[in-house]
Amino acid sequence: MDKKTAAELLTKLREEKPVIHHITNYVTVNDCANITICAGASPVMADSKEEVEEMVAVAGALVLNIGTLSPAQIESMILAGKRANELNIPVILDPVGAGATALRTKSALKLTEELKISVIKGNAGEIGVLAGAKATVRGVDSGSLEGDAFEVARRCSELTGAVVAMSGATDIVTDGKKTLIVENGHPMMGNLSGTGCMAASLTGAFAAVSDDYLESTASALALFGLCGEKASVYSKGPYSFRTGLCDELFRLKSVELGVDARIKDKDGI
Amino acid sequence: MDKKTAAELLTKLREEKPVIHHITNYVTVNDCANITICAGASPVMADSKEEVEEMVAVAGALVLNIGTLSPAQIESMILAGKRANELNIPVILDPVGAGATALRTKSALKLTEELKISVIKGNAGEIGVLAGAKATVRGVDSGSLEGDAFEVARRCSELTGAVVAMSGATDIVTDGKKTLIVENGHPMMGNLSGTGCMAASLTGAFAAVSDDYLESTASALALFGLCGEKASVYSKGPYSFRTGLCDELFRLKSVELGVDARIKDKDGI
Amino acid sequence: MDKKTAAELLTKLREEKPVIHHITNYVTVNDCANITICAGASPVMADSKEEVEEMVAVAGALVLNIGTLSPAQIESMILAGKRANELNIPVILDPVGAGATALRTKSALKLTEELKISVIKGNAGEIGVLAGAKATVRGVDSGSLEGDAFEVARRCSELTGAVVAMSGATDIVTDGKKTLIVENGHPMMGNLSGTGCMAASLTGAFAAVSDDYLESTASALALFGLCGEKASVYSKGPYSFRTGLCDELFRLKSVELGVDARIKDKDGI
Repeated sequence: MDKKTAAELLTKLREEKPVIHHITNYVTVNDCANITICAGASPVMADSKEEVEEMVAVAGALVLNIGTLSPAQIESMILAGKRANELNIPVILDPVGAGATALRTKSALKLTEELKISVIKGNAGEIGVLAGAKATVRGVDSGSLEGDAFEVARRCSELTGAVVAMSGATDIVTDGKKTLIVENGHPMMGNLSGTGCMAASLTGAFAAVSDDYLESTASALALFGLCGEKASVYSKGPYSFRTGLCDELFRLKSVELGVDARIKDKDGI
Repeated sequence: MDKKTAAELLTKLREEKPVIHHITNYVTVNDCANITICAGASPVMADSKEEVEEMVAVAGALVLNIGTLSPAQIESMILAGKRANELNIPVILDPVGAGATALRTKSALKLTEELKISVIKGNAGEIGVLAGAKATVRGVDSGSLEGDAFEVARRCSELTGAVVAMSGATDIVTDGKKTLIVENGHPMMGNLSGTGCMAASLTGAFAAVSDDYLESTASALALFGLCGEKASVYSKGPYSFRTGLCDELFRLKSVELGVDARIKDKDGI
Repeated sequence: MDKKTAAELLTKLREEKPVIHHITNYVTVNDCANITICAGASPVMADSKEEVEEMVAVAGALVLNIGTLSPAQIESMILAGKRANELNIPVILDPVGAGATALRTKSALKLTEELKISVIKGNAGEIGVLAGAKATVRGVDSGSLEGDAFEVARRCSELTGAVVAMSGATDIVTDGKKTLIVENGHPMMGNLSGTGCMAASLTGAFAAVSDDYLESTASALALFGLCGEKASVYSKGPYSFRTGLCDELFRLKSVELGVDARIKDKDGI
């Protein structure tokens, strides 16, 4: 893809300021709200079944994150997701810890079956579990995956109909046919709780201003990784890194993203 | 009002260290706890219906924030609020997102009807909704308001019997008769999730050491805005701003508040 | 104890990276997750009764914190704790606010009765309540204690069979027979919400790599206090202090802990 697209989407995001409705975990929710603001969008967190259908109707995207799931929360996710599907609002799924417990695996699969998910963003283990591959997930760690990561991501996309983003040292983003590789990022991101969740929030924000979820997702991940690179230069540990990460995103100009995004077509085209 | 009052209240707050009982959302709760400490008070968060009546009884103020409300949480708010009313403990309401969904509007109105609220602190859209004015609220954004802001704030105060604080570029604080304007603040406060919630926590802390909720609320908002001004000088984005905001509050001397608070009587008296 | 033990445990923790399963409050949960990562372990937060038994089975320790308890959460704590007991996984209890409400006191006692707790970490008031001593707890403040702190800590240990850590200007750690005193720490830790919770997380992380919970607990508290001392040198208030606290822990070398830990046998041996 043309890196100018990433820059254009960031500009559009800041002009339109879409509401990004999150139903998410209580561990990293504050960082998700703030990273969404730093990107230029407007977060709202609401998970009561009495209000999610009404709330999602004004949103540009819906982000579902099962980091601290409960059966009641999954019910709200289904309600909000169905309404989003009716209104053609993109739904992003972050299947945190799928594979770690039966509840998480079952809930993630249920969401992919009952809803039309636009983008699934997970680590290798989580995506592997959703693709039916041999994968092990320990807690909410990345776990490990047997088999070719590209093939697993493609299979997950085929099974779910979603664009699949598998995060890692390099991120893989695929719609089952075309595959992009995002090389932005920094190892310090693995030392901060919630970077995966924040990446999902940004994926939602970019999906809200695009019809091409393959490109919007790669753009979001490139943006996040780029800010991580910048923050790593002067940070002294995970918390000063987090401060830098959010501040850099807030200040980043679209034109910088157009220059420094490292997004490649897998097949070198 | 005399700005010395603001300074005196801050001194009193740090001497008495009242417990501020919060029933609040899970997005910004950590910042609410910490800003309460930075001001000199002692936060406690408790929302189980089995314990809220007992917990509120030792508090100097009760802060109710519907940012991520549920029917069970509203029930706890009513229980805690009624006990607070019996004990003459001030109750502060932050009607987050009133107008955005029926659940939020209905819940905020229910709280104002079943409880004696001392202070309602909201943005223009939320206060407008409670005043029955034409207002639109999108997610938890400030929304917009038709009509004169002063008039709407006054009407909200008349309808509810509460002091009403409408936050904005300048804050309006009114008891329906007398109106104060607080000019402290900085635009960066709008780029950080939870500044509204933190302002409500401080409003609670100041109400705990005063009988005049008009003056205590204006003092709290002036203090918060002043710390925002100070932090904005050296911050590089929302997260370094947040760090500065809390640190500045922790260090601020009462005498500085007495000098730098910009609180005016609306009618120039 | 030999301070080299503290250094060795930190090294082991970073090699083994145990999963630390938390069932905890929604106020300080993010800091608990991040401090666990900074120490070198892998946090997971999960509290649905449908999954806690499965989740705890892969953990190196279980941390139970009743900071924002509900009856449903206590039920999950019992389920996870019983499974941890079966699997010989250490269980750490932070009885936040025991004594402040009947629900908290009753719940904390229930956990100590139905579960084999390895370590109880609380402030003087909370430990006093569990020991049946005269203690007053106001909100989640430290409260006050009548009687000799060492004696109360020992009694709590005898009654519960757990190692007891009573936090304060100097921390007391006792197994009922042997008592250690940890002198690391800084007063600024009392100005930040969640330092007690973070200390419990670290206590869990160290318990996961040791069989001697007296020594592992003293090591964890010395480590935390030492990082607080280092962060206090350059911090300007509670939030820059928090950033420094986590960053220092992330960077701290085991050998430094071996040198700078201030752990003493109470009886000077």
